[in-house]
Amino acid sequence: MRKEKLEELRNYIEELQIITKERKKEEFIYQGTEPIQRKGFINVESYNCKLQNGIIIPREKIVKGGKDGNAAIILPITNEGNTLLVIQPRVFTKETVCVELPAGYIEENEDPITAGKRELVEETGYVPDQIQLLASFYQDQGCSAAYNYSMLALGCQKIKNQNLDQDEIIRYFECSFEEALELVNRGYITDLQSQFTLEKAKKIVKKTKCLTHYKKGE
Amino acid sequence: MRKEKLEELRNYIEELQIITKERKKEEFIYQGTEPIQRKGFINVESYNCKLQNGIIIPREKIVKGGKDGNAAIILPITNEGNTLLVIQPRVFTKETVCVELPAGYIEENEDPITAGKRELVEETGYVPDQIQLLASFYQDQGCSAAYNYSMLALGCQKIKNQNLDQDEIIRYFECSFEEALELVNRGYITDLQSQFTLEKAKKIVKKTKCLTHYKKGE
Repeated sequence: MRKEKLEELRNYIEELQIITKERKKEEFIYQGTEPIQRKGFINVESYNCKLQNGIIIPREKIVKGGKDGNAAIILPITNEGNTLLVIQPRVFTKETVCVELPAGYIEENEDPITAGKRELVEETGYVPDQIQLLASFYQDQGCSAAYNYSMLALGCQKIKNQNLDQDEIIRYFECSFEEALELVNRGYITDLQSQFTLEKAKKIVKKTKCLTHYKKGE
Repeated sequence: MRKEKLEELRNYIEELQIITKERKKEEFIYQGTEPIQRKGFINVESYNCKLQNGIIIPREKIVKGGKDGNAAIILPITNEGNTLLVIQPRVFTKETVCVELPAGYIEENEDPITAGKRELVEETGYVPDQIQLLASFYQDQGCSAAYNYSMLALGCQKIKNQNLDQDEIIRYFECSFEEALELVNRGYITDLQSQFTLEKAKKIVKKTKCLTHYKKGE
């Protein structure tokens, strides 16, 4: 990757780094005078489960916004054959900022592909021509029902502005697919979802590139 | 995969399926008369974070047993060149049981390789000759500091009995590496950690197998 390109990425990272992290007092939801759950986006629920073999096991479930927290992870390829990455504060990581593929939670009754397209547009302003599913998987099957979908978004074009939630702060960064793989190896892309999605896309992206070059050559 | 082999796997799955799942009332830890956090293994903490650019964002952190919840995921290859999988109740998944690679949380001050070896022995009774790191990554970087390690355990030999925690119920299953990949494609191995670790190991396992055959041929 060119020095100036890496400089651009480092500037985004630096801007979004955390200076201070202050623990807040937890608030609770009450039923009468009794606390029944934590107030917040993420919660934990307790269950006793009886197995076919008769054994009863206790288990805890993480819920996000009252839902399972299914997510879509999108590998966007632009009309020029480039990849788009996003940079955002990830305050509990050592680096406090992560470079990732665009991703987001799937809304109630939303299908994964629609969610992927929506998240890509919101986070980058790029609109894809077509999206195809690469893989699907549980993210943390021991204590969550979250089921995620990795997808490839082809023919992406910058049409809109970013449209972020109030608490979202996201920069985006355009590079070649090979440079994205380089950023995994150099320790810039550190999350499992992005690493796996890039890995799964390798063969397809190479084929697609041939196709793009072929079309341009016509 | 042979029919009898798949039958064996299905029997383990069936035995561990969930019949009933009962939500329990949450309990809380108090400071005086005030609740300060949920009682349980998994908890959520609230923070306000100030970025370099001056913006303050609220974020929630999932903690497991008071720690980040770093984990080791182990792909075991036996002396015979086979792979070991584990089957256990995953009560919040649609299937209620998952087929996975052995894995577990890294203890305080434990290095990832030691944790991987310990978890493998506990869950299967197999002891590896050597372990090598395949990859490392954040599992849910938006709301957790959990940093996981995928590793390949070579030369595994059945030396001990399983040694499980009170609430752990785990069966293990031996198959070829190719059959493990087949179980991903057939929808038996559904979690991201296992899928990614198997993907990352493909090249190395092929080489190692050549080596085993070479040695055996001597």
